[in-house]
Amino acid sequence: VRQGRTYSIALVGATGIIGREILSILEEREFPVGRLKLFASEKSEGEVLEFHSAEVPVSRLKQGVFKEVDLTFFSAGPTSSQEFAPEAVREGAIVIDTSNAFRMDPFVPLVVPEVNRQALLDHRGIIASPRSSTIQLVLILKPLHDAARIKRIVVSTYQAVSDTGRRGVEELDQQIRDLFNFHDVTIDVFPHQIAFNCLPQCGVPLENDYTEEEVGIANETKKIMGDDRMALTATTATIPVFYGDSESVNIETERKLSAHEVRLLLAQAPGIAVVDHLARVQYPQSLHTVGTDKVFVGRIREDHSVEHGVNLWIAADNLRKGGALNAVQIAEALLLEKL
Amino acid sequence: VRQGRTYSIALVGATGIIGREILSILEEREFPVGRLKLFASEKSEGEVLEFHSAEVPVSRLKQGVFKEVDLTFFSAGPTSSQEFAPEAVREGAIVIDTSNAFRMDPFVPLVVPEVNRQALLDHRGIIASPRSSTIQLVLILKPLHDAARIKRIVVSTYQAVSDTGRRGVEELDQQIRDLFNFHDVTIDVFPHQIAFNCLPQCGVPLENDYTEEEVGIANETKKIMGDDRMALTATTATIPVFYGDSESVNIETERKLSAHEVRLLLAQAPGIAVVDHLARVQYPQSLHTVGTDKVFVGRIREDHSVEHGVNLWIAADNLRKGGALNAVQIAEALLLEKL
Repeated sequence: VRQGRTYSIALVGATGIIGREILSILEEREFPVGRLKLFASEKSEGEVLEFHSAEVPVSRLKQGVFKEVDLTFFSAGPTSSQEFAPEAVREGAIVIDTSNAFRMDPFVPLVVPEVNRQALLDHRGIIASPRSSTIQLVLILKPLHDAARIKRIVVSTYQAVSDTGRRGVEELDQQIRDLFNFHDVTIDVFPHQIAFNCLPQCGVPLENDYTEEEVGIANETKKIMGDDRMALTATTATIPVFYGDSESVNIETERKLSAHEVRLLLAQAPGIAVVDHLARVQYPQSLHTVGTDKVFVGRIREDHSVEHGVNLWIAADNLRKGGALNAVQIAEALLLEKL
Repeated sequence: VRQGRTYSIALVGATGIIGREILSILEEREFPVGRLKLFASEKSEGEVLEFHSAEVPVSRLKQGVFKEVDLTFFSAGPTSSQEFAPEAVREGAIVIDTSNAFRMDPFVPLVVPEVNRQALLDHRGIIASPRSSTIQLVLILKPLHDAARIKRIVVSTYQAVSDTGRRGVEELDQQIRDLFNFHDVTIDVFPHQIAFNCLPQCGVPLENDYTEEEVGIANETKKIMGDDRMALTATTATIPVFYGDSESVNIETERKLSAHEVRLLLAQAPGIAVVDHLARVQYPQSLHTVGTDKVFVGRIREDHSVEHGVNLWIAADNLRKGGALNAVQIAEALLLEKL
């Protein structure tokens, strides 16, 4: 990636939970950042963030700021992306958007580089990064689909409160402290108490009685895998963990895959770590994903309730591979492709 | 049930998490208890429990204690049931066992009264109560199976630490206190830290790479439903909640069921409460099950990834309907049948 040239980067939503992670991953991976502009909402104006030992002030978004910017990351939610991403493109920047604003837009590539980096070739200025639950899922579906064609997937998720941003993290923390001190619990970010509870809802309710997260996983998976025949149904739940999303995945394939073959295929695929030895109580755990870059997969078992079935369990850091890391990997792929 | 006659009752495992709940449910439901004998392990000997304002001492199990006992509840784990239940039967008592010792024994009825009370007619002294995750599942499967024949079920569980008894509850509590006080976490009951973590394992690992809980749900469901053609695959996980087990259930039926029909069928079935209004963020929550007797069902949606599919979410108090209550309901059914 580095050939001496550096790039002028902007980051919208710099003080958010994903924004801060993008900044730290750009640093970690020595992304060739030249000029760096940080933006956030009004209430973060004047904050200063550190990047490679330099102090970078956080400004408010306004017209004209994207001139002379090569690449802009948007991680401030869909409203901000809808308002400012097209403007950034007009001012000459390429946009990598981690929000839900453009994911299903037919003119916007939705990219997980290990799975469909070729989709980048068609971009018109905006590239979308999928939701966390989709990213970890498609990473393990891809090698299995290539080998045996996946017909149907039934997925149930176990999602962390950080999927809802820093306020979700703070709410779980505060509710537990209140309960342990015999105080009343305050409910604000989640629709119900999340401490010591399990909520079968991620994202807003849609009219078909599915949640936005459930429909999003299905649609994004089909778009990224480029196969409309692939059937997928999802049930999404938030559990009281801070970081790390897990998923229970049941897969039906056209051609039979033994558990052994699945393990081999996944072990050879990029971005995946197989942790699968039940007898030694080794399997993916949300807690162990924190700060890591891989999608962990384990509990791989043949499912004999259907002709060619496989069960498995995946977990990944929802803020890194599920968010910031995937966005930075898209940027790296763009540089490699000289797009 | 009450016709003036009372019954001599013994309770093995009286000081355990399920034992105490059995005692309190016998009281609540005014079960016609005459004499009451309480048993527990050596370390609880000498404890005294209250029953209808009387103080009842806890003794150690030994030969001869079941003479003149009509009905014995066993809730002290499989080893104790294996050792003493046959003896209790020889001494003339009927045994209701909440442990895993006899559930799959072909000569032992496995009973959820709302679903298969007729199985009680064949008992030979021991009646088994299923595991918590099976009980709540078969309750909602039964009316759907009767209406449309269930072909296949894919279930993922979200289980509470109290499934592992009082020590499981204490471990989650202690780990959270330690973490919030910057102390190291002690791991004892669960194979890994359970606070703020999600473990895709309930029960011991088996040789086929499934856990004992996963195989148990499948086998028990088939036995209770009396239909070997019903295919079921399960993935079980423990999440950091104290009480209340939840399950994400995907069902494929022979005949089509609309979401509306499913709601009607379940609303009319015994032991079930339908809580299903996603737009108003109403659905079953583990926290809301605590202290209740119903299996809550919601998130009912047609699943178009398969010809006749339905998704739904269930939750129940794992210690009451999932444990103690079902055992007491078996006892009530025995009395009604005069068995």
